[in-house]
Amino acid sequence: MTEKKEKHLGVYPGTFDPLTNGHLSLVERACNLFDEVVVAVALSNVKNPLFSFEERLDHLKRSVDTLRCRSQLTVVGFEGLLADFVVDQNATAIVRGLRAVSDFEYEFQMALMNRKLARDVETVFLMPALSWVYLSSSMVKDVASHNGDITDLVPAPVLAAIKKKFQKRK
Amino acid sequence: MTEKKEKHLGVYPGTFDPLTNGHLSLVERACNLFDEVVVAVALSNVKNPLFSFEERLDHLKRSVDTLRCRSQLTVVGFEGLLADFVVDQNATAIVRGLRAVSDFEYEFQMALMNRKLARDVETVFLMPALSWVYLSSSMVKDVASHNGDITDLVPAPVLAAIKKKFQKRK
Amino acid sequence: MTEKKEKHLGVYPGTFDPLTNGHLSLVERACNLFDEVVVAVALSNVKNPLFSFEERLDHLKRSVDTLRCRSQLTVVGFEGLLADFVVDQNATAIVRGLRAVSDFEYEFQMALMNRKLARDVETVFLMPALSWVYLSSSMVKDVASHNGDITDLVPAPVLAAIKKKFQKRK
Amino acid sequence: MTEKKEKHLGVYPGTFDPLTNGHLSLVERACNLFDEVVVAVALSNVKNPLFSFEERLDHLKRSVDTLRCRSQLTVVGFEGLLADFVVDQNATAIVRGLRAVSDFEYEFQMALMNRKLARDVETVFLMPALSWVYLSSSMVKDVASHNGDITDLVPAPVLAAIKKKFQKRK
Amino acid sequence: MTEKKEKHLGVYPGTFDPLTNGHLSLVERACNLFDEVVVAVALSNVKNPLFSFEERLDHLKRSVDTLRCRSQLTVVGFEGLLADFVVDQNATAIVRGLRAVSDFEYEFQMALMNRKLARDVETVFLMPALSWVYLSSSMVKDVASHNGDITDLVPAPVLAAIKKKFQKRK
Amino acid sequence: MTEKKEKHLGVYPGTFDPLTNGHLSLVERACNLFDEVVVAVALSNVKNPLFSFEERLDHLKRSVDTLRCRSQLTVVGFEGLLADFVVDQNATAIVRGLRAVSDFEYEFQMALMNRKLARDVETVFLMPALSWVYLSSSMVKDVASHNGDITDLVPAPVLAAIKKKFQKRK
Repeated sequence: MTEKKEKHLGVYPGTFDPLTNGHLSLVERACNLFDEVVVAVALSNVKNPLFSFEERLDHLKRSVDTLRCRSQLTVVGFEGLLADFVVDQNATAIVRGLRAVSDFEYEFQMALMNRKLARDVETVFLMPALSWVYLSSSMVKDVASHNGDITDLVPAPVLAAIKKKFQKRK
Repeated sequence: MTEKKEKHLGVYPGTFDPLTNGHLSLVERACNLFDEVVVAVALSNVKNPLFSFEERLDHLKRSVDTLRCRSQLTVVGFEGLLADFVVDQNATAIVRGLRAVSDFEYEFQMALMNRKLARDVETVFLMPALSWVYLSSSMVKDVASHNGDITDLVPAPVLAAIKKKFQKRK
Repeated sequence: MTEKKEKHLGVYPGTFDPLTNGHLSLVERACNLFDEVVVAVALSNVKNPLFSFEERLDHLKRSVDTLRCRSQLTVVGFEGLLADFVVDQNATAIVRGLRAVSDFEYEFQMALMNRKLARDVETVFLMPALSWVYLSSSMVKDVASHNGDITDLVPAPVLAAIKKKFQKRK
Repeated sequence: MTEKKEKHLGVYPGTFDPLTNGHLSLVERACNLFDEVVVAVALSNVKNPLFSFEERLDHLKRSVDTLRCRSQLTVVGFEGLLADFVVDQNATAIVRGLRAVSDFEYEFQMALMNRKLARDVETVFLMPALSWVYLSSSMVKDVASHNGDITDLVPAPVLAAIKKKFQKRK
Repeated sequence: MTEKKEKHLGVYPGTFDPLTNGHLSLVERACNLFDEVVVAVALSNVKNPLFSFEERLDHLKRSVDTLRCRSQLTVVGFEGLLADFVVDQNATAIVRGLRAVSDFEYEFQMALMNRKLARDVETVFLMPALSWVYLSSSMVKDVASHNGDITDLVPAPVLAAIKKKFQKRK
Repeated sequence: MTEKKEKHLGVYPGTFDPLTNGHLSLVERACNLFDEVVVAVALSNVKNPLFSFEERLDHLKRSVDTLRCRSQLTVVGFEGLLADFVVDQNATAIVRGLRAVSDFEYEFQMALMNRKLARDVETVFLMPALSWVYLSSSMVKDVASHNGDITDLVPAPVLAAIKKKFQKRK
């Protein structure tokens, strides 16, 4: 168990492909818990990404600008092992959103592995707003690719980018 | 969403009948996240309790004395709605341990209800050490009642109290 | 497999102790699927009921009066095996709400048993509105018993009855 | 909530790659609930399909010919968003089979999205016969690809087509 | 890890209140795996038992008489901790039937505790026949108490006893 | 149901890509239950394998050499349907490790299919040591690919091979 830290930093990692309102809602909740929150966009591990790493970083940066807790936030990209990244950042905790059961299993597995690799960093699970409990990036991608309406589901910069992306494909 | 608080207080509620090493491990993890942690023993809602409210409070108070983060901790009892209690305490968050799937469903339900009743208090889920993931108070009670060995599973004050309890019954 | 029926009747069984807005929302959804819907209040199987059978019947009758599909609805009590009741009613289907995972297991088990006992009656699962996915009668009872606010969670006749009930207890 | 419709139409969507006896059993159950049932074969979203869209349509058309409720059924293909398709069809409900837990999570997520996109169309979950509860197209494919016996698991036209397919591959 | 034993003994524990065909099917499967199988009826831990300990023992003894593997079987009662009992018996393994998800969680928890208390005894999970996957003693009790037909679900001695039991109650 | 066999043979199948300490722990548990254990490496069904079939066979053969129950063990590769393989081997049972919930669903499905294809072979589920309950080959692969430390998670021959593999890739 670690020494109590002066400042509490929470790292919220993800691929954000695309960023959804569910993700943003979780960022806000993390702000209530930590002095500083780092939203960490993973470079790797996305199969057939809709948006490039640069685009995903850009969407996040522009979308968090409207949040009340903007001053507590940093958006960064990272490559490699999450456990290494959070140790580098001197983080107190990894923040994860809990949605449904299948999620839970995987998250548990990952949290145990991260605890093994970065002993002093807790994994903290937060619950998104009920409206987003069943929202996932992949479902948003699926609906958008068939020209379904996703206006309520993603922040404005992502909505614009998705519209552009699927117009091009036609 | 609430204003960021000056001091972060986490409330870890439970019936602790009996207190296990899994609970204590969670208290320690909560200390890493919050400036202060209130362990809140629920008066009510225990069917056929093994220990009385007073006994459970006493076990907790004596058991947390050995924790490194003792100075951050308060042990209190509470009656009535948890949501009212955490608002009274001006808490940042309710802390809950996540164990297995059936747990998860119930915890989700309760967290949503608490969010409704106490809007500005997050529910934060932490993962106990792997050794305690499948440990529950009711299983400890069951094993103890058949004179099974629970030495590794509960703190010393509880172990003594349980031994006494089941000796009397014979 | 059965002959197709002239008129489709859906039976929505429950103990409704107490009736919640989630139940009412499911009644409305059932109306969209069936020509007639029978809301069937089970006499038995409630441990420590908050409301008597007569009270629960009364709450339902008064609460469905405000529903748009009132003319399609009947509220009745039943005793004994659900499978016998639905055969008596010449029902097309038993209607059940699906909430979370633990629910699902039990519902599956019950549906298979009912199929065995009443071969020609399907069990149909509907999904409540997202707002009610995690709402349960027992949680409502718990919050109400601690004087928590349940205004949004139950229909007006139930709200009044609950207030009366817990005032008396003081 | 929608006006009650004159005629109840249920849409049973899927990729049916390949069609199994479990699917057919669900079609029959849907016939007991709806005046008309549209079995809707999705053009897209199949990774490494065993059978082409045309083949899957053909298997379905030939296999439903033996069903008692043949006159209530239409088999069609569709492209794009399911929500758009069911609105076009003026459907009362989307019909889905519920199998096991992992299914359930995904189905819930999809049903919530479809409710958002097509407000007046319910999603109705039916339970396949016990024999098919754990049957999936992908397991059939896997067994067939190793020349395992799938005689009881798929309708005759699919059985013939699968045999042909895997003979060619040798 | 333990020394390999000369003879493999499997202990199949339960309350068997009442014994179902699902239990018997599991006994038969256990016989395929072990040289000897002990069916162990727990004295304790049954809330509101339908049948007394003596009755349950009697049902089991009479019902296993029809099994092909009768000569490999012993039926005994036990009191106290299962872990103590299996060590006394010099058992190789505890045999448990796996049904559905909620089962699984609890079984896992119990198996881990038993491993802790009786290190050299494995817990072995077997899958009942598909027909019994969703059958439970409590559902049988519930149906029987409402005079529902349980002929296919329990062995003859239990069927007779249940009929007698519920006749008396009228 | 089958005749009881003279010698009990358990087949433990997998892709073992890579072999982990969790797999080895399960092999040891299987040795306690069966006279002979065949560890069966599947040739096929691995998408983007880290190690070739030959490498995986080699890792297993070298890693089981250190096990106490070495004399009971055979390591073989197999191609095609597992059900055919276990019948060929005259096996008593297929051995599977149970980890978490999502696992459970899939394992159930597979076990039912294998029972259908090889009637006389049971599927036996064992629980890995708690330390390995949440360990999976894919997580090991993921951590290793980012140069994370997997020393405690895999046997020595695999550790060496993984280091070599990822050095080459740089």
